[in-house]
Parts: sequence; C-alpha cells; structure tokens
Amino acid sequence: MTTLTSALGRPLRLAVIGGGPGSFIGSIHRGGATLDGHFQVVAGAFSSDPERSRQAAIDLHIERGYASGAELIDAEAGRPDRPDVIAIMTPNNSHHALARQALARGFHVMCEKPLTLTAAEADDLVQAARQADRLFCVAYAYTGFPMVRQARRMIADGVLGELRMVQCEYLQGHLARVSEAETRATDWHFDPAVSGSSLILGEIGTHAWHLAQFVSGMQPSALTAEVCATAPGRQAHDYATVMTRYDNGARGMIWVTQAAAGAEHGLKFRIFGTEGGLEWHQQQPNELIYRPLDQPCQVLVKGGPGLSEAARRVSRVVIGHPEGYQEAFASLYHDLAEAVVARETGQTSLSADNAFPTVEDGADGMHFIETALRSVAEGGVWVPMR
Amino acid sequence: MTTLTSALGRPLRLAVIGGGPGSFIGSIHRGGATLDGHFQVVAGAFSSDPERSRQAAIDLHIERGYASGAELIDAEAGRPDRPDVIAIMTPNNSHHALARQALARGFHVMCEKPLTLTAAEADDLVQAARQADRLFCVAYAYTGFPMVRQARRMIADGVLGELRMVQCEYLQGHLARVSEAETRATDWHFDPAVSGSSLILGEIGTHAWHLAQFVSGMQPSALTAEVCATAPGRQAHDYATVMTRYDNGARGMIWVTQAAAGAEHGLKFRIFGTEGGLEWHQQQPNELIYRPLDQPCQVLVKGGPGLSEAARRVSRVVIGHPEGYQEAFASLYHDLAEAVVARETGQTSLSADNAFPTVEDGADGMHFIETALRSVAEGGVWVPMR
Amino acid sequence: MTTLTSALGRPLRLAVIGGGPGSFIGSIHRGGATLDGHFQVVAGAFSSDPERSRQAAIDLHIERGYASGAELIDAEAGRPDRPDVIAIMTPNNSHHALARQALARGFHVMCEKPLTLTAAEADDLVQAARQADRLFCVAYAYTGFPMVRQARRMIADGVLGELRMVQCEYLQGHLARVSEAETRATDWHFDPAVSGSSLILGEIGTHAWHLAQFVSGMQPSALTAEVCATAPGRQAHDYATVMTRYDNGARGMIWVTQAAAGAEHGLKFRIFGTEGGLEWHQQQPNELIYRPLDQPCQVLVKGGPGLSEAARRVSRVVIGHPEGYQEAFASLYHDLAEAVVARETGQTSLSADNAFPTVEDGADGMHFIETALRSVAEGGVWVPMR
Amino acid sequence: MTTLTSALGRPLRLAVIGGGPGSFIGSIHRGGATLDGHFQVVAGAFSSDPERSRQAAIDLHIERGYASGAELIDAEAGRPDRPDVIAIMTPNNSHHALARQALARGFHVMCEKPLTLTAAEADDLVQAARQADRLFCVAYAYTGFPMVRQARRMIADGVLGELRMVQCEYLQGHLARVSEAETRATDWHFDPAVSGSSLILGEIGTHAWHLAQFVSGMQPSALTAEVCATAPGRQAHDYATVMTRYDNGARGMIWVTQAAAGAEHGLKFRIFGTEGGLEWHQQQPNELIYRPLDQPCQVLVKGGPGLSEAARRVSRVVIGHPEGYQEAFASLYHDLAEAVVARETGQTSLSADNAFPTVEDGADGMHFIETALRSVAEGGVWVPMR
Repeated sequence: MTTLTSALGRPLRLAVIGGGPGSFIGSIHRGGATLDGHFQVVAGAFSSDPERSRQAAIDLHIERGYASGAELIDAEAGRPDRPDVIAIMTPNNSHHALARQALARGFHVMCEKPLTLTAAEADDLVQAARQADRLFCVAYAYTGFPMVRQARRMIADGVLGELRMVQCEYLQGHLARVSEAETRATDWHFDPAVSGSSLILGEIGTHAWHLAQFVSGMQPSALTAEVCATAPGRQAHDYATVMTRYDNGARGMIWVTQAAAGAEHGLKFRIFGTEGGLEWHQQQPNELIYRPLDQPCQVLVKGGPGLSEAARRVSRVVIGHPEGYQEAFASLYHDLAEAVVARETGQTSLSADNAFPTVEDGADGMHFIETALRSVAEGGVWVPMR
Repeated sequence: MTTLTSALGRPLRLAVIGGGPGSFIGSIHRGGATLDGHFQVVAGAFSSDPERSRQAAIDLHIERGYASGAELIDAEAGRPDRPDVIAIMTPNNSHHALARQALARGFHVMCEKPLTLTAAEADDLVQAARQADRLFCVAYAYTGFPMVRQARRMIADGVLGELRMVQCEYLQGHLARVSEAETRATDWHFDPAVSGSSLILGEIGTHAWHLAQFVSGMQPSALTAEVCATAPGRQAHDYATVMTRYDNGARGMIWVTQAAAGAEHGLKFRIFGTEGGLEWHQQQPNELIYRPLDQPCQVLVKGGPGLSEAARRVSRVVIGHPEGYQEAFASLYHDLAEAVVARETGQTSLSADNAFPTVEDGADGMHFIETALRSVAEGGVWVPMR
Repeated sequence: MTTLTSALGRPLRLAVIGGGPGSFIGSIHRGGATLDGHFQVVAGAFSSDPERSRQAAIDLHIERGYASGAELIDAEAGRPDRPDVIAIMTPNNSHHALARQALARGFHVMCEKPLTLTAAEADDLVQAARQADRLFCVAYAYTGFPMVRQARRMIADGVLGELRMVQCEYLQGHLARVSEAETRATDWHFDPAVSGSSLILGEIGTHAWHLAQFVSGMQPSALTAEVCATAPGRQAHDYATVMTRYDNGARGMIWVTQAAAGAEHGLKFRIFGTEGGLEWHQQQPNELIYRPLDQPCQVLVKGGPGLSEAARRVSRVVIGHPEGYQEAFASLYHDLAEAVVARETGQTSLSADNAFPTVEDGADGMHFIETALRSVAEGGVWVPMR
Repeated sequence: MTTLTSALGRPLRLAVIGGGPGSFIGSIHRGGATLDGHFQVVAGAFSSDPERSRQAAIDLHIERGYASGAELIDAEAGRPDRPDVIAIMTPNNSHHALARQALARGFHVMCEKPLTLTAAEADDLVQAARQADRLFCVAYAYTGFPMVRQARRMIADGVLGELRMVQCEYLQGHLARVSEAETRATDWHFDPAVSGSSLILGEIGTHAWHLAQFVSGMQPSALTAEVCATAPGRQAHDYATVMTRYDNGARGMIWVTQAAAGAEHGLKFRIFGTEGGLEWHQQQPNELIYRPLDQPCQVLVKGGPGLSEAARRVSRVVIGHPEGYQEAFASLYHDLAEAVVARETGQTSLSADNAFPTVEDGADGMHFIETALRSVAEGGVWVPMR
C-alpha cells in the first residue's frame, strides 16, 4: 500500500474543515489520512475566530490556516498546489453548504455523517456530486474494518446462502445520565437546529443502518420504528428499535441507544442465511465469527488463514496484532486515495473491493431517519422505504 | 440444602407423566427432581401403550408404571403413599386436561411450558389451582440459574435504579433448514393442533418473555410484534421480534428464532437502568456482567464474592465449578420442594428468594402469544397487554 | 444411557464413606452416581460418631448408616443385597486402608484423589486391585467433561499430528490469604500427616498432571520442578511450576497454585502438535478451541456438529445447554457403572471410549508428587520419571 | 497531545534506517512516529543499493534517501536541519554499530530489539548513551498499550499489595512448520550470525522478559530455563520456558514459542499479589482484568472509568473504540518525543508516567538471553541474574 501514490510522485493533498486541537474526530481524520502515507494535510479551518484558527494550524504544523471553511475552499481552489480532497468534520448543519461549495469548486469530498439535516439536502448533494463528477466519501468508519470487509465479501460470494435475518445493534452508555450541557444545550448535539431531527438516529442510527446494508448487500423495503427518549426528563431521542422487512422475505432489526448505562461502544451485527451465520463486534474488531450450517463454528481473524483479498487489502499488521478504529478510518481514506489516484492517472476502473461509502449511502441514511420518524408519528405502523 | 426434607423423615414423592427413555426432557425432569435428594420418583406414565409404559418404568427403575396420565392420577390419588407432586411433560395439547385432573385430585403440579394451547385454557388453570389451593410450578427452567436469581435480586434491591430498557433474545439454529419431519408433520411440534398457534412463541418466545419479567420485575403494558417464517417454504413461525413499552416509560425488545443458522442456545438478557446495566448469557450461565454507571464493569460469578443469598441458595458447587441446565432445573424442583415441605409441616411463609414460576406466569405467557399474534394480524400495530 | 442397568433389572448399589451433610464433595459424589439413574445409594458412613453418622443417613434418606468406613465394609460385605461399589471420600490418610479393605472384601472402588499419602501406598493399591480383580476408579473428575473426551479422541486419532507441547495450568485463589484454620491446622488439608507431603501437588497438581496425560496420551520422561509457598508466613506449598520432557522431543509445562488472588477455578490445557492445537478451559467447559494448522480456528461445542462418539456418550443435554462439574462427575460414575454392568452380565469388552481414571492413574499421580519434590530437594535438577 | 511540539514551532525530525517499502516494521515505525503529529520523517536509508534506496525514499515521499545507514548518519549530522532522532530497524547484527555511530554524532536513538547480538555489545551501548548524554529508546512496543501502562501504574501504586507471582507468555504459530527459507537460511532470522544466539529468545523472549518487569516493577534474581527446538528437524530455538525467583520470595514463569500451531500473537501476562491480580492479553489489548481479593472481578477498559493518568495519556480514542499495535508503537514515539522536546526546551523533569523502554532495558534483555542459555548449557540449573 505504500506505493499507491508513487505514480503521482507526491502524496495527495488534504484540506480539513473542523476538528481543531482537542477535537477527537479531527485527530482521527488527520491520522487516518496520513497513516498510510497517502495524504499530506496542507490546509485547515479550525475556528470561526481567525486568530484561533491560524494558531491551531501552527500548533498542528499545518501550512495554511483559514478563518472559515468557505474562505478555505475559495482560497485553495485558486492555488496551483490545491488540495485534492476537502474533508468536512463540522457540526451537521454546515455539511450541506460546505460540501456543495467544495463540489462546485471541483474538489473531491470526505464528509462526516449524518450527511445533512434533511433527506432533501442529502438528495441535493447526490445530484451535485454527480454533476460535478467528483468523488464523495461519507465517514461511515466502521466499514473500514478488515473483518467487516471480509463479512461483506463472504455474503456477496454467497457463503451464507440466501439471507434470512439481518440484525445490527449499537449500544453506548455516555448519555445514560442527563447532563447539564444537554439541558442548557451548550452541546450542539442536543440542538435539533444544528444536529438534526433525531439525535440517536443521526449519531449512531445511521451507522447501524448503513453497516447492515454494507455487509448484507440488501436494502430493506419497509420498516416500523420506536424512537424515543428513555432517560427521565430528556428531550432528545436516546433510543430506537427498528424492525425491517426485505423483498426476499428476510427480516431485520436494529437497536441503537446511547443511554444504556455502562455500555461502551457496542456496535455489532449478526446476519443469518440459509447456509450459515456471521457475527461481528466492533469492540473485538479483528475477529469474525462464522457459523457454517451443520459444521463447527469458525473464528476468522484479521491476518489469519482463509481471508479474502477484500480483508487483506485493508489490513496493515500481521496476524494477532490488533488494528482499531484509527486504522478503520485510514481504510476509508485509503480507498478514497486509490480512487483519486485512479482519476489523476487516467485509470478507468477500481478494484471491486474498493468500498468507501458514498454520498448515496449518506443520503440513504437521511431517508432512513425520516422514514423511521414517520413510522413513529403514525403510531408505529409499517412504512415503505422510498 | 440436603436437609430440606429431614423434617418429613422421607423424600417427597413425584409421579411423572411423559418423558420416557430417550426423551431429553424426561431425564432432565427426573434428574432435576432427584439431584438434591428432595424427591423420589415413584410412578410414571410414559406411553399410551400399556406394555411400553410399564417396560419404561422398569427400565428406569421406577416402581409403578401406568398406561396413561389419567390412569396414573386416578390410581395414585387413592394410595396412602400417594405422590406429593405430579410432573407433566407431555405434548402441549394435553397439559390442560392433565393439570386440571391433578389439581382436582389434590396434587401439586409441575408442568412444562407453554402451559396450554390457549390463554383461555391457561386462565382456567389459574382458577383451578386457586380453588384447589395447590402449588403449581411451570418449567421456565432458566429462572433457576444462580446468576439469573442474582440479577433479579439486584434489580429488586434497586441496584440498577429505575429500569429504562429490557432486552431479551433467544437464538437457536436447529430449524435453519426445513426438515422432512416438519413437512410431513411427523414431529408434533409442527402440528398447531398439538403445539399451539405459534411454534416459535410457544417453544422459546414464552421463555424469553417470562425471563424478561422474572428478572426485571416489570410487566410490559403494550407491544408490537413481527412473527413469521423466515425459512423458505416453512409454514410454522420460526422468527419473532417484539417491541414493548412499560408504564414507567421504559422500552423493551424481544428477539427469538430457531432458524438462525449456526446459533446454539443463545438466550440472553440485557437490562439497563438509571444506575447501571446487567447482562447474562445462558451459554456462560455462571457469569453475570454488571456495569455500574461510571464505574468499571464487574463480572459476578456463581460462588464468588458479592453475591446475594438469592444466588447462593440455588448454587451447589464452589466458585469456578460450572453448573448448567440440569442444575437450573433442579433449582425449580428445589423451590417447589421447599414450598411443599412448608405446607406439609405447617409453615406459613417461604423465603422471599423462593421463586419458582407459577401457573400465573404460565398463563401470562399464553396471553403474550395471543397479544403478539393480534398485533401481527392487525398490521403491526401496538396492542395493550390485557 | 438410561437403560444401562436395564439388563440387571435393578440400579447398581453404592455405599459411601465420608461426605456427610454439608460436605461439598459428598453431594457431588451422590449426585454424580444417581444423576443418570445408574446407582442407588444404599449405605453410608458419615462420621466417627455413631449417632451423628446414623442421623446423617436418615437426613439423606439413605437406608443404612454406619459409624465408620471399616464397619460399613464389614457389615455390607455379608449382605445378600451388598453394594456393588464403595466410594471413599474421606481425608487422604485413610484412603489406603479403606480401599485395601474394600478390595479385600470384593468391592469395586471409587476413591478420591490424591490416591494415598505416598507412592509406595499407591503402588500397593495397584497390586491389591489387580489381585482382587476389582474395578477401581480415581475421581479425577475433569476427565468426565465431554470436550475433554473430545480432545483426547482427536489426539488419539492423530488430528494434531505429532505432539510438540503440552501445557496445563490450574489457578485457584482461595489460599491467597493465610487463614486462621491454616495456621492452627484446624483444617486437615494443612496437616501433612493427613493430606500428604505437598498440599498444592496433592490437591490440584495431580489433577493437572493427570489431565495432561489423559488428553495427550503421552507420559513425560523427565521433569524439573519449583514447589513452594508464596504467601508470606505459609508453611504448606501453594505454588508449583513443572517443566517436562517427553521421549519424542516434545516439551511440557504445568503451573498450579491456590494462592493466585482472584483466580477462580482456572484449570486449562493447551496442547500443540505438528498439525494443530487444542485449548480447553474448565470454566467454559462446553467449548473446545481447535486450531488446525493454516486454517481458521474452530470452536467445537458440546452437542454441536463435528463431535466424536467419545464426547457424545458423556453428553446429556442438547447443544448450547451447559453441562458442568456435577455432570462431569456423573460421567465417571457412568463409565464405572458401564464397566460394572459389563462384569455382572459377562461382557468381555468395553467401549474404547470408556475412560474412567484407574488406580494406576492414581498411583502415577503419587509418583509425580514424589519426583517433583525430589527435583526441588536436589536444587531444581531434571529428574527422570520412574 | 497535539500540542506537544508547539513550543518548538516545528515537528521533530526523524531519520529511519531500514524498513523500506514492503517492510512490516518500517511502516509501523513511520506510522508510529507520525500518528500523533510529533515527528516528520525527513531522511531514510532503505537498501544497500544506492539506487533502490533513493527510489524507496521517493516512493515514500521522504525527502532525502541514502545508500546506507552510516552514510545517512554522517551526512545528516552536518545539516542545520538535522534529524532529532535516528530510528534503526535493520537486522540485529547491525544495531550496535549504527547506534554507536548515531550516539557519537549526537543523535537520540530509537532502536529495534533485540538490542544487539551479545550482552557485551549491549553494555557498550549503555555506556555510549550515557557518555553522549543522549536519549535511547528500545522498541519494546507492547509497553505502549494503555492498559499495560494502567497495570504498571496500579502495581506501582500498591493496588496488588506485595507481588507473589509474575507470569508472562507469548505464543505464536508461524514457525509451526519448518520452512524452506529456514532450512536454506534465506531468511536472516535463522542465521545466528545475523539474528543472535537464540531465535526464540531474541525475537519474542526479550519482549516477554521485559514486559514482565515493566509491569511488575521487579527484577528476577535467578532463573532456570529450557530452550530448544520442538519442530522436528529445526536447528533454531522455537520454544522456551523459564522459571524465575525474586528477592521478595515471589516466583515467576515465562513461556514463549513461535511453533504453537494455530496460535496467533498470544502475548499475555498474569500477575498476582497479596491483594489482587491482573491479567492482560495483547489480542484484546483494550481490556485489563483486575481481580481484587475477595471482591468481584473488574474489567477495566481503555477510555473507561477508573483509569489512571498513565493510561489516559497514551489513549487517543474514546471508550470502546479499539486501539491496536500501531497506536502502541506511537506511544513509544510519543514518550520519546516528549523527552526530546523537554531537552530542547530546557525542561528538567518529565512526567512520572513517561515510560519509554531504555537502552538499559535493551541490555537487560541481552543478559536475560545469555543467562537462560547458560542455565540450559549447565543442565537446567538455577543461575543468578547478573
């Protein structure tokens, strides 16, 4: 993987909007982009205060600092050494405008999820990306784990037979207690005007929804949902369960919450087909449990025997050496880099295993949110998807 | 525990109906009844063929064999050394009549689940048991595990604060493939006239439903359900998901299936309250994961430090020595024995930790089945319980 | 398995010496003997006080109580309905004499481990058993777990190729703290005259030593040992590590302790051959980790696909229903019962999978203890076995 | 952590010797150095072929490429923008000369393990580093995991009381089969002139030895060892067990092998004291099992409640997001960077939790190897350390 950019004779250039010093997601994006040596971070906008934004760039040893994302996009667009990709990691309500502008100026885009505030905005970005003919990656980071890629490949290859059940859950505990930041809305996540119509669905529901489809390769045709606040006195949603139906008769279920006291980061899927089942847990990401029908259970491991090229190409370290969240993020940047380099060097096709989540995936997540909320509003009925 | 029956000067006497040689559940009942030395099996009816039934009794070294349950109840009722308890482990459609008869003749009853074919039959047994003033245990065996008792006690003691989420799942895989016995209905489980209106809900749905309530101490006020067959060509239900609401605003979810290829016996609950969470998995039954809010996770173990009397009284072996399904069953018989001995010796009250599931619990399971099926029939709407 | 004794027309008869009410091992032996319906406990000696012994028998609903083991053996030997087997679960220093007497009176014997106080006594019992032509089972109970039997069968069948490493560890924590019972020697385990020359080696070292051989099928040719007390102020050994060599060039290692603070009952083996490895942990006894060379790891489970008859014949409950220590004990009694019945009915051969540990295994454990202590006494040198 | 180098106004500069494109350890070092933004890689020597070395630098987007480590050190020493640190990841037999030269030219050093070929060479480097007054980090990477740091801090704080047992094992399986590269010695690891006197002790024995001391804070006073080849026909050592004694009466044990068929990367320690025990497994690195005496077991997790500053300062992502081997490596570079910056900015003391392994630790590993081999040569006797 270290020679992906050799053909260019330079690393790709990345500009970041949001994610300054002290931000968790900022260091994850920069670390993910640079880990494999594909990207160099050349510009950033970290604060609406020009002085603080500039200082942040200096502290991070990033060459060019800007006072706003809009200014960055405008200024960088005119440079001969302009960035190849703009990465957007600001609060949700600014994604649409920034991504719109970046596309309009001809940049490829990496954008945090949820993609936008509404499905309409998201559909607009889908159109804009198509018109601009630019690459657009949405940061559904869990798709970058090698064993998630392995599961996806096995299912695509028919190893499980026809799928019958798709379950995905995502349990966190950090909202088990109603916080002061929440009640005063000093945390933007709790302000619907900034974060969107459903905290839980936007924050982690879209992850679970997307992961289920990314791995299963199937799209539910209808759903019924329960979305609510379980913590006494809370306004924002902290809990959702969703039941789904697929056209082939399979059934699915999603359970997401951030109010499960003591839960850590329990993203997990279990998928069963006529010929076997798969189980993956984000907290032990280097293992994939495979249960072939009528045969002993297998534990597939990253770097171990029996893995597909889909898993190997996003693995960095040999068997038994754990890789984690940062590496999964790097795999999204890796796939994006591969696609950008292919564009720059005139290649016409990518590996079938290049699988970064796209703007369409991001838009699908917004439709999921709105469909689930419609089911709730109508008393818990089944609602078709699209 | 070995002296529970010393006051009587004899072990309790048990008669069993159903569960002859080769039957899984038969040996589990007999082993459960005798493991702690509380019961002696004195009579049995194992087959509708008088000769085979008698031979079965001889093979099992049981003194008296009968050609039918009805005959057994009649004949044993008149003996001076009559059994204290009649245990019924026949196909579901015979539970009601046999239990009715046993109660009418003054026996205490142990009965397999699902209790009956319909909620109406079940309610009738509740009335009959009350009128006869007899003890009636329903074999929800998972309630006998020490760490299930521990979880129940912790929640009752308020350790989790107010409960907010109750999830219970039960995944099996033996029906992943449609079998010949099923399509020809040579297995009574697939004949609704014998097993009841929903295979999956009767077989394991009632277990999950009851366990959630046994541990949480809360009864859902409404539910919405999806109940169906996922295996292509199957008639009988093999899959159900249920979403529940509780009066205090908590939410719940149940997922049961016997068609999850490769799944073993994945009965598991996760319960979260304002002050912490608990997780238990039947396949590692001697552990209970306790997640106190804002403190490190604890792994409570059977026989280990920090356990309640509720767990200790149904533990037989010291720390680290695994106890399993047979022992859980024995704990139901233990609690029943304790209650019978209390009656016989004129004690007026039992330990608060005596917790065998009752005829009311069995009837509640039947109401759960009918309510869930009503939700499905009405298009997946929310339906109140009772 | 329920018809093992049908040919006799009666259950086998067992007399127990030691293990009265309140004794952990007493209820385990009685439960193990009766769980499968093979044995009926007909007589017992539970105390050197005649009155207490008799009362214990009454409390346990056992027909005949005696004031001593010697009296029991003498009295029962003359009865027409005399016991088939005498089970000895008294303190270690009485095993030799009681077993000697039982053999002399023609009884088959079940005896707790360590077999005796010295290797010389043990060798004497081997001779006595041969001369008496009686069956003699030593209660190395961990050999009764289905997945231990599975491991043994796989290795015997060559699944691992030639063995290269045999590791067995057994970590307990209940002696992490020096107790009052210990310093005053009110607990017989701490009195070498009663328990033998090395507490740790007798109590659990022999288990680990035997298990390694039972599963691997190989006998070390030499060892070097470290045996000591690690708890400050303790006299008795609470820790041992042993390195072993095998004739085929394989190496082995044993680690046993009862002073590992917080450890539960961590008996575990890991065995590696040229074609794969096996791992088993007593605390998750229903799983066996199988690592075939260059292929994905498998988790074999009790009752699951791919198991041998050796495992199935000592499994009672279907897949995913945990079986534990009590059931493992029952499997020793099961194998012993099968052998006794074979004798009584004139069968000449037993199943190759009948595998109860014998008096020779018990004697080998005593030689292990003495060889290990010799290595220590000589400064930690390598000492040949036998 | 992102502002560690802000005071310098530039990232630190790193030159790397060895580890070109395709090298596993090369990308790990570069990724580790740059992940947190502390270092920029400015120069490299990747091949003894000048053209290939230059091309490698170009492919990796590294500014200056050299045909040899010696040339790099000489040339870079004279630059005004000379590197702060030289990282050496060449075969073992070149470590001593390169590190010697780097120290002589005033560079701080990061060096792979085993430090040298002999203890004498290693002692020489200790002297050289002291004389040059330069920082010297040895890449014992497992010391960088947050939960390893947590364990070390807990023990140093006395949480376990006085230590009684220190066990460390490290099981790999990639040498289960004798390879062609091995028999023809086309892999330098199998050439003692290049890799040193004991493959297994140099490759992973030193890791296990160091980790035991790093965490326990105790140094064994004597050892006895078994070191050998278990694979038939192999010359190089692939297996070692070591028993240790500590001055306070504690005992220890080490088990390392690369020939355990099917094993992955099983580095694990278990340490027990008078007040509790700790257990850590590299394959689940974000968990630390803590067993306080007489209290329930706790599972401490990276980013979770109850952690020390020692763990937090080397954690990058919030609770439940796994961090792995690459991040552990980054933590060594982080600690080294912190120390270099402190030097450059005239700070006199470092955090007590800065804990990068030093040249003295590297030398201790070489003494361990030689002492263990001496024990073997003398027939398995106990040998004092130093």
